[in-house]
Amino acid sequence: MANKKITSRDVDFAKWYTDVVNAAHLSSYSNVKGCIILEPNGYAIWEKMQSTLDKMFKESGHKNVAMPMLIPENLMKKEGELIAGFAPEVAWVTMGGSKTLEERMCIRPTSETLFSDYYSGIVKSYRDLPLKYNQWCSVMRWEKETRPFLRSREFWWQEGHTVHETQEEAEKETRDMLNTYKTFFEDYLAIPVVAGKKTEKEKFAGAEYSLTIEALMYNGVSLQSGTSHYFGQKFSKAYDIKFLNRENGYTYAYQTSWGVSSRMIGALIMVHSDDDGLVLPPKIAPVQVRIIPIGQDNEEIMSLANRYYDELKKANISVELDNNPNTTPGFKFAESEVLGVPVRIEIGKRDLENGMITLARRDTKEKLQISKDSDIALEVNKLMNEIQNNLFERAKSRRDNMTYEAKTLDEFAKIMNSTPGFIKADWCGNPECEAKIKEIRGTKSRCILENEKCLTGKCVACGKEAKHLVLWGIQY
Amino acid sequence: MANKKITSRDVDFAKWYTDVVNAAHLSSYSNVKGCIILEPNGYAIWEKMQSTLDKMFKESGHKNVAMPMLIPENLMKKEGELIAGFAPEVAWVTMGGSKTLEERMCIRPTSETLFSDYYSGIVKSYRDLPLKYNQWCSVMRWEKETRPFLRSREFWWQEGHTVHETQEEAEKETRDMLNTYKTFFEDYLAIPVVAGKKTEKEKFAGAEYSLTIEALMYNGVSLQSGTSHYFGQKFSKAYDIKFLNRENGYTYAYQTSWGVSSRMIGALIMVHSDDDGLVLPPKIAPVQVRIIPIGQDNEEIMSLANRYYDELKKANISVELDNNPNTTPGFKFAESEVLGVPVRIEIGKRDLENGMITLARRDTKEKLQISKDSDIALEVNKLMNEIQNNLFERAKSRRDNMTYEAKTLDEFAKIMNSTPGFIKADWCGNPECEAKIKEIRGTKSRCILENEKCLTGKCVACGKEAKHLVLWGIQY
Repeated sequence: MANKKITSRDVDFAKWYTDVVNAAHLSSYSNVKGCIILEPNGYAIWEKMQSTLDKMFKESGHKNVAMPMLIPENLMKKEGELIAGFAPEVAWVTMGGSKTLEERMCIRPTSETLFSDYYSGIVKSYRDLPLKYNQWCSVMRWEKETRPFLRSREFWWQEGHTVHETQEEAEKETRDMLNTYKTFFEDYLAIPVVAGKKTEKEKFAGAEYSLTIEALMYNGVSLQSGTSHYFGQKFSKAYDIKFLNRENGYTYAYQTSWGVSSRMIGALIMVHSDDDGLVLPPKIAPVQVRIIPIGQDNEEIMSLANRYYDELKKANISVELDNNPNTTPGFKFAESEVLGVPVRIEIGKRDLENGMITLARRDTKEKLQISKDSDIALEVNKLMNEIQNNLFERAKSRRDNMTYEAKTLDEFAKIMNSTPGFIKADWCGNPECEAKIKEIRGTKSRCILENEKCLTGKCVACGKEAKHLVLWGIQY
Repeated sequence: MANKKITSRDVDFAKWYTDVVNAAHLSSYSNVKGCIILEPNGYAIWEKMQSTLDKMFKESGHKNVAMPMLIPENLMKKEGELIAGFAPEVAWVTMGGSKTLEERMCIRPTSETLFSDYYSGIVKSYRDLPLKYNQWCSVMRWEKETRPFLRSREFWWQEGHTVHETQEEAEKETRDMLNTYKTFFEDYLAIPVVAGKKTEKEKFAGAEYSLTIEALMYNGVSLQSGTSHYFGQKFSKAYDIKFLNRENGYTYAYQTSWGVSSRMIGALIMVHSDDDGLVLPPKIAPVQVRIIPIGQDNEEIMSLANRYYDELKKANISVELDNNPNTTPGFKFAESEVLGVPVRIEIGKRDLENGMITLARRDTKEKLQISKDSDIALEVNKLMNEIQNNLFERAKSRRDNMTYEAKTLDEFAKIMNSTPGFIKADWCGNPECEAKIKEIRGTKSRCILENEKCLTGKCVACGKEAKHLVLWGIQY
């Protein structure tokens, strides 16, 4: 029985998405146009993402810093492509107190300029390199159309910015960080992703090239989920980051940047969740287990509930005991489902007469009876592993089933107009062909599949010789 | 032998402070006027402060959220005292992209307005209360004079904002959070603080009253270190936060807010550090131990160094092994001192011949020989406890020695003009007397000592009947 507050995702996907966000209290619109509030349940997921990624970053030698949130216009302008890309969508501070500023400043839309300016002052010798810094912050882009987590004027993210002695090392960093993101998505978020290179048209303003991971949502729409950019010497030349090299000469440094954002929460919703609300993979769920005693005046039930609570807590499993006297068990079940708690433990009188309790898994809604004397932490961990794997496999087989190949533009259009998803098709490298494909429901190139061979060797749009196999999709 | 890059703190305290900030690479000025960069060493301290406080907040039932960074002018203006207090020092966003905004927005200087606006939408019944939310973010105040950590246009902080059913509960929260801050300062930062109430003149704009903790720096200047505000119904009336009460009528909610900031890093420097650089209490030091092998080609030395590293790591002690082949042991010692690492382990050939190694403590510079076969984690933990206690006791006895009593204005001026510190003196409650005292080197009331009796019963400034014993000081 589906949650009554939630529209079915097969009836109206956009409405379903909003309903899940609201029912799970993840975020709400503020009275600041285009800006959202991360409510406690949404922020808790973000914190879990942060702590997991932060550990991965630190283990690979990255350090956190904090840069200013404002960028003076002149500093922003030093690298021409970046300002051209971002100027239409930044917020400008023009007054401090009651005085008009001599030079206006924008709220950072991204911080390449600030990091580069800082690096130009501290990078003197090859001995200072590499510098591998990251910051967690919010950034602002003056979007017109907004949607919780997917696109809002302010969003939360991390941005890594690194400086290297050689091109080789910087390119390795660019790929390593994309792999870190891929691992995080697949092993923690249980979301399969395709990794590849953006086309010239879709790359980050100012990058030599951009790498991306792309995920497919339940409705067949694709989501750019994380990007890693190789800058070569573009910024180091614009911001004068040069160092004494090993041959006693000067070299402009090689740079990268990479980021993932609170948009990942949107991906979690659109890949795993259902008509009963949020579904969270155990590894990223702020609350992994809820214990629900059915009959709170029963001493045996409450003592078991407390024992399980203590044992799970001791095993570092995040657990809550829902003994609210004002709500029914049915309400409690539905609430734990809306919130996406992976495992529910139900302790009821009838089960106990047979020495049993019930574990309910959120992903499949299956119920499992186990002895009340089980090693509860062991059983829960076993079940959470199964859930984590099931969510990934379920998402992967859906993604695979929705990944098509198109050899002609007709085939391409037929697929996209009926059952959208990922389409693999050959491309000649010409942006005009990208534009032509965009006419089909706004389909864009997601990424170049660097390690895959072309299907026919002919561009799907123009028929000329193909350079790459490309993944295409409709994007958020 | 003091660090050559650092001016003596007894010669030029302000220069010493800047030298320590630079030598320990805590922060640097950016090319964004009045804004600083938190460099990795500074940010690591901030992260340690954050994680410690965050745990304390969560244990007392608080949840994290994220509010927008912008506040539309009309929303800001709803509570009159707040806007009057902050208007002269906010940054205004007037353009989005190339368009002038219909309504300008300020970058949050503090977020009472945003939280209140949000609460007005979600607080419906007494059953919804209390709401105890907190956010970690940066805020912006358009200061003219800036100094790293102590005062800069942008700074990092947490701001707790809570809503309660009754005055009693809200006032308790206000005091509880002040106590949380006091515990954090004394038990973790090893900084003794005086807790009390701000005078009307010094309270937060919009508060019924403000509580504060005040710390005394090495040079006798006082630092407002954390504040907790009771708002009563001021904001709930301005923002219409009312709820169905237990008698089926409507009540305006009672609110609080409380915050501490990256200024705490400035306090750490000015209370504990010395002419050799930073001194950090072990409980807040990002790196607690550095192992320095003297002679890196010696197999016994290196195998011991690695063993200690593993054992300390296993005991959850944060440890680094400095085996940089390009620097001398002397350089390594000095560097671990500049960075404020509480304990240094020196492993040298001569000591080893006697079966010994050396532990050097940063606070007193004493060296201690122990058997190379000691339980290293046990010894280090014992020493770190001693250091933590010693730092607190040292700061406390200095603070106590610099806390004076003044019964007349002459006495008051004599003390402040020779050896500034805290002065306790009676006050009648009249702001004119506060103004008169301010003429003495800019001395301000730090807080009303609510639980202490007056000295003479007469105001130190006007001689009329005293209402309070007040703590006075020169402030940062």
